[in-house]
Amino acid sequence: MKTVTMDGNNAACYISYAFCELALIYPITPSSPMAELADEWATKGKTNLFGVVPKVKQMQSEAGAAGALHGALTCGALATTYTCSQGLLLMQPNMFKIAGEFLPTVFHVSARAIATHALSIFGDHQDVMACRQTGFAMLCASSVQEVADMALVAHLSTLKAQIPFLHFFDGFRTSHEISKISLPEYEEIETLVDEEDIARFRARALTPDAPMQRGTAQNPDVYFQNREAGNPRYLTLPDTVQQTMDKVASVTGRQYRLFDYYGAPDATRVLVLMGSACSTAEETVDGLNARGEKTGIVKVRLYRPFDGKAFCNALPSTCEKIAVLDRTKEAGAIGEPLYLDVCVALKECGREHITTVGGRYGLGQKEFTADDCASVFENLKLDQPKNRFTVGIRDDVTHASLPVPIAPIDGDESVSCIFYGLGSDGTVGANKNSISIIGDETDWFVQGYFCYDSRKSGGITVSHLRLRKTPVRSAYLVHQADFIACHNPSYLNRLDMLKNLKEGGVFLLNSPYTTESQLNSYLPVSFVKTLRAKKGKLFVIDGTGIASRVGLKGRTGTIMQTAFFYLHPDIMPYEKAVGHLKKMLKKKFEKKGESVVQSNLNGIDAVQGAVLEIDVSKLCPIEKKDSVILPNDAYFQKFIHPILTLRGDKLPVSAFQEDGSCPTATTRLEKHGAPPYLPKWIPENCIQCNQCAFVCPHACIRPFLIDKDESAPPNFITLPAVGVAEKRFRIQVSLHDCMGCSV
Amino acid sequence: MKTVTMDGNNAACYISYAFCELALIYPITPSSPMAELADEWATKGKTNLFGVVPKVKQMQSEAGAAGALHGALTCGALATTYTCSQGLLLMQPNMFKIAGEFLPTVFHVSARAIATHALSIFGDHQDVMACRQTGFAMLCASSVQEVADMALVAHLSTLKAQIPFLHFFDGFRTSHEISKISLPEYEEIETLVDEEDIARFRARALTPDAPMQRGTAQNPDVYFQNREAGNPRYLTLPDTVQQTMDKVASVTGRQYRLFDYYGAPDATRVLVLMGSACSTAEETVDGLNARGEKTGIVKVRLYRPFDGKAFCNALPSTCEKIAVLDRTKEAGAIGEPLYLDVCVALKECGREHITTVGGRYGLGQKEFTADDCASVFENLKLDQPKNRFTVGIRDDVTHASLPVPIAPIDGDESVSCIFYGLGSDGTVGANKNSISIIGDETDWFVQGYFCYDSRKSGGITVSHLRLRKTPVRSAYLVHQADFIACHNPSYLNRLDMLKNLKEGGVFLLNSPYTTESQLNSYLPVSFVKTLRAKKGKLFVIDGTGIASRVGLKGRTGTIMQTAFFYLHPDIMPYEKAVGHLKKMLKKKFEKKGESVVQSNLNGIDAVQGAVLEIDVSKLCPIEKKDSVILPNDAYFQKFIHPILTLRGDKLPVSAFQEDGSCPTATTRLEKHGAPPYLPKWIPENCIQCNQCAFVCPHACIRPFLIDKDESAPPNFITLPAVGVAEKRFRIQVSLHDCMGCSV
Repeated sequence: MKTVTMDGNNAACYISYAFCELALIYPITPSSPMAELADEWATKGKTNLFGVVPKVKQMQSEAGAAGALHGALTCGALATTYTCSQGLLLMQPNMFKIAGEFLPTVFHVSARAIATHALSIFGDHQDVMACRQTGFAMLCASSVQEVADMALVAHLSTLKAQIPFLHFFDGFRTSHEISKISLPEYEEIETLVDEEDIARFRARALTPDAPMQRGTAQNPDVYFQNREAGNPRYLTLPDTVQQTMDKVASVTGRQYRLFDYYGAPDATRVLVLMGSACSTAEETVDGLNARGEKTGIVKVRLYRPFDGKAFCNALPSTCEKIAVLDRTKEAGAIGEPLYLDVCVALKECGREHITTVGGRYGLGQKEFTADDCASVFENLKLDQPKNRFTVGIRDDVTHASLPVPIAPIDGDESVSCIFYGLGSDGTVGANKNSISIIGDETDWFVQGYFCYDSRKSGGITVSHLRLRKTPVRSAYLVHQADFIACHNPSYLNRLDMLKNLKEGGVFLLNSPYTTESQLNSYLPVSFVKTLRAKKGKLFVIDGTGIASRVGLKGRTGTIMQTAFFYLHPDIMPYEKAVGHLKKMLKKKFEKKGESVVQSNLNGIDAVQGAVLEIDVSKLCPIEKKDSVILPNDAYFQKFIHPILTLRGDKLPVSAFQEDGSCPTATTRLEKHGAPPYLPKWIPENCIQCNQCAFVCPHACIRPFLIDKDESAPPNFITLPAVGVAEKRFRIQVSLHDCMGCSV
Repeated sequence: MKTVTMDGNNAACYISYAFCELALIYPITPSSPMAELADEWATKGKTNLFGVVPKVKQMQSEAGAAGALHGALTCGALATTYTCSQGLLLMQPNMFKIAGEFLPTVFHVSARAIATHALSIFGDHQDVMACRQTGFAMLCASSVQEVADMALVAHLSTLKAQIPFLHFFDGFRTSHEISKISLPEYEEIETLVDEEDIARFRARALTPDAPMQRGTAQNPDVYFQNREAGNPRYLTLPDTVQQTMDKVASVTGRQYRLFDYYGAPDATRVLVLMGSACSTAEETVDGLNARGEKTGIVKVRLYRPFDGKAFCNALPSTCEKIAVLDRTKEAGAIGEPLYLDVCVALKECGREHITTVGGRYGLGQKEFTADDCASVFENLKLDQPKNRFTVGIRDDVTHASLPVPIAPIDGDESVSCIFYGLGSDGTVGANKNSISIIGDETDWFVQGYFCYDSRKSGGITVSHLRLRKTPVRSAYLVHQADFIACHNPSYLNRLDMLKNLKEGGVFLLNSPYTTESQLNSYLPVSFVKTLRAKKGKLFVIDGTGIASRVGLKGRTGTIMQTAFFYLHPDIMPYEKAVGHLKKMLKKKFEKKGESVVQSNLNGIDAVQGAVLEIDVSKLCPIEKKDSVILPNDAYFQKFIHPILTLRGDKLPVSAFQEDGSCPTATTRLEKHGAPPYLPKWIPENCIQCNQCAFVCPHACIRPFLIDKDESAPPNFITLPAVGVAEKRFRIQVSLHDCMGCSV
């Protein structure tokens, strides 16, 4: 076993690669990194368990990937794929075939929402739930560690049972969460593989040497009988999976069951759920039970086949009420799928007296916090708990949402940090580096989670880091931060930067203004007031200036990250951290040339001495008129502005058109005002080639050709147009739409 | 209203065409006829309700059809599609979008199996059940009449509620069953359409005149809230559908409810099911209740949204036990989907004390007869009724199947007929003609159902006709026939032709041998014995000879059909029948030229006088050695022979490989021996052009070039090879593989 710091996709790929001779892929967020990693490793010649370098082939779509996969399996290849969402839906026809022909494979799915009223690239269980009828076994991992463990269970079980597996985990929340986990070496995995399982599979391969037919057409006289012939395999599959879990535990030391119970042995109120929310629910249960409540959760691991008896056995005998949480929505169903399964399981094992309700949470990766979880337990206290509820949103239309309890449950945070960056400023990359360094080089358990704006470059990025002496369980964003860094000074005027700062926490500001008097002119009054009330400390560094000087214009991530280490010698001595950072950056940028490496190293060296503590008590900021002029537009006020200022979570259901429609031309209302640099037209250098406009990705640089005698405003500088005597030429820059891309 | 004789596809198309401006299609059996009809009508300029000729466009696949449909709906077109099975699966990504955007449309689905261990083009609910999570409303029609009625309810409801509908009915069993039904005229449909519904839909169309955005991407902050914004529409949809059903009833006189109960008002045992099996179940309930039992059924019409309260209200208060029948299989689920819904509905309305079990039936269109249905009621008599049962097959592997009761339930047959034909001999077409004539020109209710061999041309076709004075409810094949016609004499040696003949029934044989002595040499002894025991009457006609003489070589259908009318003056006076037949054939063949028409008319005229009654009591058939030599092959004996002799239904589950695999080169074992004509090589005419081999579709005619001095068997006639002095040429005909195609 080895301890590594990686994300869920990486963990899934590590295991699947071991068993893979052929990966047939088509990229779809957030599953792409699995396929990309496999491709990268194969290109580098990394071998699988059997000493073979797998082939990785990208097909024309997910439908093609599934079709090719079906073909490969039919011919006895150990093949796999990685996908999710619409991509997974396109695989369905082949999934029915693969399951019907009892071909062993594992589909690794970073479960994601399905596009309905709007597209969402984020995590929930809509896609995997839409495949529950295909005949695939379905195994769920609820953390990065479990991704590795369940991937292993899935690959071993599929070979043993010759039934295909869909192994899934929450998109982004688990697939992109970086965590410190324990992984078996390939040599250890090898001891778990039963060669006979593989031999049995190979023996069923289509080969001219021993020809047989597959994929025939059957008439009504025989199809049904044949469809029933595979029943025994499904009936014994739960046992096979449990035995495999036991076998894996003998190597990893981590024991799983088909349904794992966590909580008070005499719990009366129990939650049933699966995926990343399980660890949050564990936290909540600990919090509630510490206050004398009797609560627990059942974590669903093997979702298909659903073993009703095993489920009932996992429930404490004291259980009186159950809430089933589904991370999906099937409009028109009498209940969500897991709720239906649980109700029927209870009925069939004679425990239908248990009051059971169901609810939805976390669609499109809506946050599910310990407080949200507590509200579900609170609901179960009622004589008639609300059924078909939602949690995590405010539903003021059909009033399905649960109220969030007044006394909040704290997660198990220890050192928690938030970093606000600008898309492509290097913040996320730098955070990934530091979390790897901390995870790999210290005894801290780490969790790194990164919120991207779907606008990508130029949008807000928020990095959430947690460090803890035991594994981190909070599968939600940091709400109580010990440390907040603002890598882009313009956010101060737009976002509530201190909302999540703990009392006594540290705020690090990247700012061109570093003296008290400068800051007095610059900082918002409300910011200083709140910081004082929270007894927070303020540090500033001119990260943008340093980046510019060392040749990293606009890419402040590394500098700010170094400053983070400078301020946290308790996590790792500064010199040691700098050493690791430099080593990592050298490796990362060596392909880009010596000068890029040197710029980064110089950036790191420039930090010491540049981080200045500001005495907050001495600041007397000047009252300023709001520097951001908000558009006078109803849709902007109601919808865009809350979203732009990261308050979209609070929008109630009534704020939305049910069909997802919205006005056009709203981009003009999204004035970021975030870039640290703006382009400027220098007329005397201009040769009117228009290439500046051509490369500007946001169309903010716009050339105009105007009539010579057109009346123009004063200061409206024009040049005689090249080659068109009666025209004049001018470049206009739309400052508000500009994202400061380094063109 | 008008009374017409048509199949389910035709009925669905008739209604959908009324509402259709644009049909986006891709053909897939058994839904293709809907699309083909729409295409044909549009080509002929038939207008819809709004006086417009719809556009019908075939796309590159069902995925493309669904995508284009989504686009058309977004732009406010009244658009529709027709599909099933894998085709429907490919539409899922767009179905989620269409439902998420609340776009009104109806997908008409002739529900079909999904290819798993083997492909099946036949009916069950696997495909529609795989789409129950898309957010589409789902409405089920259980007979040809209901297809028309439910299609109308679906189109009106989707416009009213602006939620898309999936309207489905059993593939083949309903889509291809010909029945006498009552249809509203388009003028009557027009009175049901609320113009405002259409106006509301049009107002939401994307247009440059009033631009808006659709299909945006949403981040985790808002996706969930927006996903919940449409809840009110789904909550009110059941009421909307019920109101629409009421409105439609006011025109058609046929009243439906979301769940319709049929049976004893004080039933203790109740079946829940949907689709064509409902009418069989009605028959069974009548039979059982007539014997003093207390049974009933709940027919599910609106499957999504599933209105649990409406379901419980439909149940008699006396109900103690329920069996839910699902025509689908979801391997690994705790229960099939309708069973889960019913269990939860009962729990939520406080009736969980009702013992509820679930079972599968009819996969890949396995027959579901009144006896099968009775066995389900029989199961409910047990203290602990079997759960997760199957019915209609013998499961000797997991023993899930129910025993069939000893005292069989008779369906409500009145005049029932079976016609055995050879694929492409015209039997099916002729039967379709006669059923139309009887349906349209008499007061008989009719049902025509046609079993094709998937080998099509050259395979066995079996036509099942029922005539009755009230609507025919038996949604299964004829088992007790008053009349059986054998259009191909070779079947006598292969099939048990008398198995389904009622006592005293009539058997009509197409035979070149028409005298007693000829028949004594020809008829199998067992055939005559059984016919005598059943007190059956025997008629013979040399249909093949007549066909040959009038120029219809091999196409005996019309002649045999005329003989049917000749023997059934009670159904329609013979002269009248001949008049209708001639009129119909003239119309059908006028495009093919005068001589084809004349041949058919001559064929009809030749029948009178050619139908000879044989006195069965006088026959003394000669014991013959079995003329068919069966291959000495284990797989043939166990598997192919039962299927070829129409006994495949009796194969138990253990006969099958679970993964659907089977040996290769089995076509050689399928010796049809069925063709009435065989090709013969006439060496003196042969110019060695090889075109005979080229056109032979089954590769039975094979030319050989052999060495001059090669030793050949006696009677092995060869010709000097043209242009190759040292070779000799010969044509060989493989008689057993030959299907007698008219080459």
